[in-house]
Amino acid sequence: MNIEKILPQLIQKNSSKILLVVLDGLGGLPHPETGLTELETAHIPNLDALAHGAACGLMIPVSPGITPGSGPAHLGLFGYDPIKYQIGRGILECLGIGLSVGKEDLAIRGNFATMNEERIITDRRAGRISTEENRRLVELIQSKISEISGVKVTIKTVKEHRLAILLSGKNLTAEVTENDPQKEGQKLREIQPVSAEGKFTAQVLSDFLQNVEEVLKTASSRANTVLLRGFSKLPEIPGFAERYLLKAACVATYPMYRGLAKLVGMDVLTTGDSLDDQLETVRQAYEKYDFFYVHVKKTDAMGEDGNFSGKVQALEQIDSKIAAVKEMGFEVVVITGDHSTPASLKAHSWHPVPFMLLSRYIIPDHVNRFTERECAEGMLSIFRSQEAILLMLACCGRLQKFGA
Amino acid sequence: MNIEKILPQLIQKNSSKILLVVLDGLGGLPHPETGLTELETAHIPNLDALAHGAACGLMIPVSPGITPGSGPAHLGLFGYDPIKYQIGRGILECLGIGLSVGKEDLAIRGNFATMNEERIITDRRAGRISTEENRRLVELIQSKISEISGVKVTIKTVKEHRLAILLSGKNLTAEVTENDPQKEGQKLREIQPVSAEGKFTAQVLSDFLQNVEEVLKTASSRANTVLLRGFSKLPEIPGFAERYLLKAACVATYPMYRGLAKLVGMDVLTTGDSLDDQLETVRQAYEKYDFFYVHVKKTDAMGEDGNFSGKVQALEQIDSKIAAVKEMGFEVVVITGDHSTPASLKAHSWHPVPFMLLSRYIIPDHVNRFTERECAEGMLSIFRSQEAILLMLACCGRLQKFGA
Repeated sequence: MNIEKILPQLIQKNSSKILLVVLDGLGGLPHPETGLTELETAHIPNLDALAHGAACGLMIPVSPGITPGSGPAHLGLFGYDPIKYQIGRGILECLGIGLSVGKEDLAIRGNFATMNEERIITDRRAGRISTEENRRLVELIQSKISEISGVKVTIKTVKEHRLAILLSGKNLTAEVTENDPQKEGQKLREIQPVSAEGKFTAQVLSDFLQNVEEVLKTASSRANTVLLRGFSKLPEIPGFAERYLLKAACVATYPMYRGLAKLVGMDVLTTGDSLDDQLETVRQAYEKYDFFYVHVKKTDAMGEDGNFSGKVQALEQIDSKIAAVKEMGFEVVVITGDHSTPASLKAHSWHPVPFMLLSRYIIPDHVNRFTERECAEGMLSIFRSQEAILLMLACCGRLQKFGA
Repeated sequence: MNIEKILPQLIQKNSSKILLVVLDGLGGLPHPETGLTELETAHIPNLDALAHGAACGLMIPVSPGITPGSGPAHLGLFGYDPIKYQIGRGILECLGIGLSVGKEDLAIRGNFATMNEERIITDRRAGRISTEENRRLVELIQSKISEISGVKVTIKTVKEHRLAILLSGKNLTAEVTENDPQKEGQKLREIQPVSAEGKFTAQVLSDFLQNVEEVLKTASSRANTVLLRGFSKLPEIPGFAERYLLKAACVATYPMYRGLAKLVGMDVLTTGDSLDDQLETVRQAYEKYDFFYVHVKKTDAMGEDGNFSGKVQALEQIDSKIAAVKEMGFEVVVITGDHSTPASLKAHSWHPVPFMLLSRYIIPDHVNRFTERECAEGMLSIFRSQEAILLMLACCGRLQKFGA
């Protein structure tokens, strides 16, 4: 069933307001010793109390068994089919370090690498050079190369051997091959157009690479070339204003999430580092927006580090602040994650994510603890993340009846 | 996954019989004082006892968050994708007042309206004239206009300012624009063809409108024109006989539901007003059909009126009759609703609907009360209405194994 087809005729405006709090990587797995997940271990009386008055459930980020990156996970949560709207790796790398990507820009991920005299790659990460050395090289390159054939070149350090490159100009396309042979012991590839439109971009990238290699010769570094991949342009995504008639704001501290929000047309608000700061930002902008997306990173970061007790602590810290959402006046509040990040996996996972929906128009269920196991017994049962926004819109009267 | 694709190869006939009881608008929301829904408030020992021996669950009418009209809600319950098979407003208006719509007919919704001398609409509802005045005008018009260019014209009063118009003849199409400017203070529009095929229909409608206005001049009413919209023809829906190899009968008291059943090829049986009468009709026709659809309106009507205790009483009245379904010999009995109509919303809603399935081939679950919250914990969990018919067919051996 294709809901996108009927959505435009159902959406209507009103004065209601929606708050979506995303606790990144919220869901977890049992600790091998206690058998309890991070959420079950944490003392989170405020989240539990909110769950008590809410309709709860488990949200599947993309599809059962599919582990999403942050891009697809957020697109799903924002109501977009993450398979239809794919965000290129280059775009995500640029968004992740806070580069503003324009419609005509080409975004690229890069690795500093080492090749021998026959241009055979001997180390795809140039010995995993330090972030400091990366910065030194990037500054050097940027000082020598700022434009090629009228195309503006922006280069940014990401971390260790990784960098992001943004080309801004006319007639750029992702219709070119990568120079990365993917394996060590193989020759660096030529960048080739894969269509007639790709010719200009391939030439710009070849020139760029030649210039970079010239600069690196003077840099006394193990890095003597750059592998370029993930060529991508912005996907054309109908924004929140157009798709949902919602004026939406993002209150996130990490560039990646601010970038993802911008992709769907949210205004990105300036905010502080703590959840207190973020909720204060929401309070101050309350009158100006219909929809607020608040992103909290710490839960995911601790999960990625495999730090079970760190994730428990992060949840407890959030808990002490979260009760404030009740007094803010929102018609609809959702607290969930974009995906699970179990400490035992040290990575994103496919597991469904605890979800609670607060509204006048729900049936509060028997869920009294905001945990994976209790949410599995909630009134919302198990559902796809793409459906979450429909529930939010319905609960604040922004979806008209379908058919008569 | 597209089940429609494999359905034809799986369907088989046998002598089993299915009863589907639709309690319109069944689901509700908690009363603000008691925290209990209509179902939770009602004393319904018979429904509870049936639920005890059944597999229960919650059924999503269209998609989470989507509030369906009666058309899409019933199509879903009958196993059809309500987005693929959309029923026009004109068709529903005609079905709702019991007009029989043929394949070539064009169905139209109309409003009596008031315009000034410059043909500017000053009141889209002609002062919301009474149903009696509407009847007087419709009789007058029908007595003067019964045919235009070989097209038979049928006009029926709906309610207050609303009327239904059915054109029957060759070469009619919905490919014409409406004359309704949608807003007061704007000029009545001309009816125009939007394709070459629309020319004849546009001419018929323009002539009809001119004639109607002539008649209304003599009627001493605030109504001096008619706004025409919702032009629609029957959608092509494969019927129950073809799609499920089921000979199906409808036992409904309201024209709208009798019309919807006819759309999918059911025979519409003559019946009385009470559930007792309806079940007696089923008993008498039992041998002649494989599938019976029994529709009960009262639950929805009370919900639409915002009458919480009225809905509770309606449920209790139904309860006292419903136990009879056990002795009727059906292999499969389903009791559910087409959608929820919470008294607190005074309208259809998006909330999932309690569902029970009685059959030899189910696992009875722990559900002992036929309520929203208990059904949420049933064996059938939460599922789309389109899947309900597959469960019914499976439980009576009418679906063969898919693949080897």
